[in-house]
Amino acid sequence: MSQLLKQILPLDQQWISRAQSHLDILTKPPGSLGRLEEIAAQLAAIQQSSSPCVDGKAVFIFAADHGIAAEGVSAYPSAVTEQMVLNFLRGGAAINVLARAAGAEVHVVDVGVDAHMEHPALTCRKVRRGTRSFLCEPAMSSEELRSALEVGASLAEKAHSRSLQLVAVGEMGIGNTTAASAITAVLTGEHTERVTGMGTGVSGPIFDHKRQVIQRAIELHFPSYVEERPAPLDVLRCVGGLEIAAICGFILSAASHHTAIVIDGFISTAAAAVACLVEPAVRGYLFAGHLSQEKGHRALLNLIGMRPLLDLNMRLGEGTGAVLAFNVIDAAVRIYNEMATFDSAGVSGAIHG
Amino acid sequence: MSQLLKQILPLDQQWISRAQSHLDILTKPPGSLGRLEEIAAQLAAIQQSSSPCVDGKAVFIFAADHGIAAEGVSAYPSAVTEQMVLNFLRGGAAINVLARAAGAEVHVVDVGVDAHMEHPALTCRKVRRGTRSFLCEPAMSSEELRSALEVGASLAEKAHSRSLQLVAVGEMGIGNTTAASAITAVLTGEHTERVTGMGTGVSGPIFDHKRQVIQRAIELHFPSYVEERPAPLDVLRCVGGLEIAAICGFILSAASHHTAIVIDGFISTAAAAVACLVEPAVRGYLFAGHLSQEKGHRALLNLIGMRPLLDLNMRLGEGTGAVLAFNVIDAAVRIYNEMATFDSAGVSGAIHG
Repeated sequence: MSQLLKQILPLDQQWISRAQSHLDILTKPPGSLGRLEEIAAQLAAIQQSSSPCVDGKAVFIFAADHGIAAEGVSAYPSAVTEQMVLNFLRGGAAINVLARAAGAEVHVVDVGVDAHMEHPALTCRKVRRGTRSFLCEPAMSSEELRSALEVGASLAEKAHSRSLQLVAVGEMGIGNTTAASAITAVLTGEHTERVTGMGTGVSGPIFDHKRQVIQRAIELHFPSYVEERPAPLDVLRCVGGLEIAAICGFILSAASHHTAIVIDGFISTAAAAVACLVEPAVRGYLFAGHLSQEKGHRALLNLIGMRPLLDLNMRLGEGTGAVLAFNVIDAAVRIYNEMATFDSAGVSGAIHG
Repeated sequence: MSQLLKQILPLDQQWISRAQSHLDILTKPPGSLGRLEEIAAQLAAIQQSSSPCVDGKAVFIFAADHGIAAEGVSAYPSAVTEQMVLNFLRGGAAINVLARAAGAEVHVVDVGVDAHMEHPALTCRKVRRGTRSFLCEPAMSSEELRSALEVGASLAEKAHSRSLQLVAVGEMGIGNTTAASAITAVLTGEHTERVTGMGTGVSGPIFDHKRQVIQRAIELHFPSYVEERPAPLDVLRCVGGLEIAAICGFILSAASHHTAIVIDGFISTAAAAVACLVEPAVRGYLFAGHLSQEKGHRALLNLIGMRPLLDLNMRLGEGTGAVLAFNVIDAAVRIYNEMATFDSAGVSGAIHG
């Protein structure tokens, strides 16, 4: 792990300036393509290239179950995790539809589903069948956390060796907004009610119960988190999930390999926040696909200083917001590579500004 | 014209409800795809179809010059209108790049460029070589306004006959943010300084001058606009532009043909606002592609009650924001048509919510 962290280098600002100079000679008023220009420059710096490329795209969906789900915090039963994994493998879920549209591969990883799963297209890397309930004990042991981080890291390594240039991280796990809310409260120092949302759709007494469960878990594991922020990997181990840990490992490894990563909604941003706190240079390799409707998402994005690309009131997870944003990033790269310059097109420059 | 307006029918809410019922049986928590679900339902209602389709896509770029540009309100000389039209025809502009990525046709229409233009791929429908300067007299005569509206209307008719299902409107015309700001002030009743922006990039004294020009023009044509809102088509005639009028006619005609229209930034929204004030049922056929960085855009969107799909700090025009949003609309339609249902995928429904 410490070896991996050393390989994550801050983006070289010279690549950003060089890219901006190129963008300024294209046939448009300088800066008029806004964030498309920033994205293109960031990609040039990530790839250390004057012709950035995102032809190889994929989404990695990490699935796992949560002991905390037994406390009745979700609108759906835990069995839905396995059922949705099968839906991903058959191509019928929202993420499959959006990935097909974006020309992206879909990789489904079982890092902790509470069921025996075998399927030719499933990447089987189960660490254990679901986490422990963090209402009573840490969700994972140190060993399990390390294993889950390594699952993610090894898949990012493989993505790099297959020349994928743009990877999204998604997840499936009934109960995982409860884990992500607990992580968010502890990492940001916010009170639980400010970072607990409806998840798959709980309301009324179930929602109140979910908040109380999170509150009690935090009091158990991190009683003084408001005064002193605990170590991020400890937070991940005590109140996280196996898929969240795998995404964290994936992000760290992808950043070390100069692969651009698009994070999705609340869950994957919780993983990204842990990664950024462990190694701040990670931030340069990330794009925030969208702003989730889930309540704590904005606080997490603020914590790591990210602005989402899309804001469409989505709250599904699976990587859907990230993959939908692939198109914006793809457009930015095409603008950078394909537009005519003022000179080549014979267009006059500004007379005054 | 009055014949055309009669053919614009309000969306049938039964189609919206029927579409929402279908969306609710797909394998995701109800409503969790947010605006994608709203878009799909709106398209089902526009097309009166239970399998909406946006395979046929195009952007129509209307180009024209502005007499007001002679007052020195833009960062670029008027010659750039013609030069950029040639750039569109050669495929080197931002809109060409984004349209290629979106699989959309590009149609370039000369409705009033101040130059003699001929090109096999150019739709030549010049009404006159630029508008008159609205600092001294109305930008167009009634006859010219009618002709420009008809240029747009006839092209929407043609788009319909060619089975295009999703059309974006874009524009090119040095000086046209000045016209759009004047339209916006008069239609919304806002003071000019609240709706005048940097356009292609003016600042300092040029920006102050631009604001004063708009203020003086409004005082000339609509001295009491704050107390009593003038007729929208009069506003278009006096302080509009030929491309803005053509877009207005295009939108009215496309709505009458049940074609979904994506508006772009400040200029095309000014045209859409006139269309919506003339016939409020138009609103149901529109999508707002993005929020432009141009200052008056939000006031215009609020006037017609629209929320933009994207917000990426863009301010280029040409239809770029609209065509970038094609992908979101396309994704919504695919979700609607391609996702598995809870039943077909064997996924359990909610146990409580």
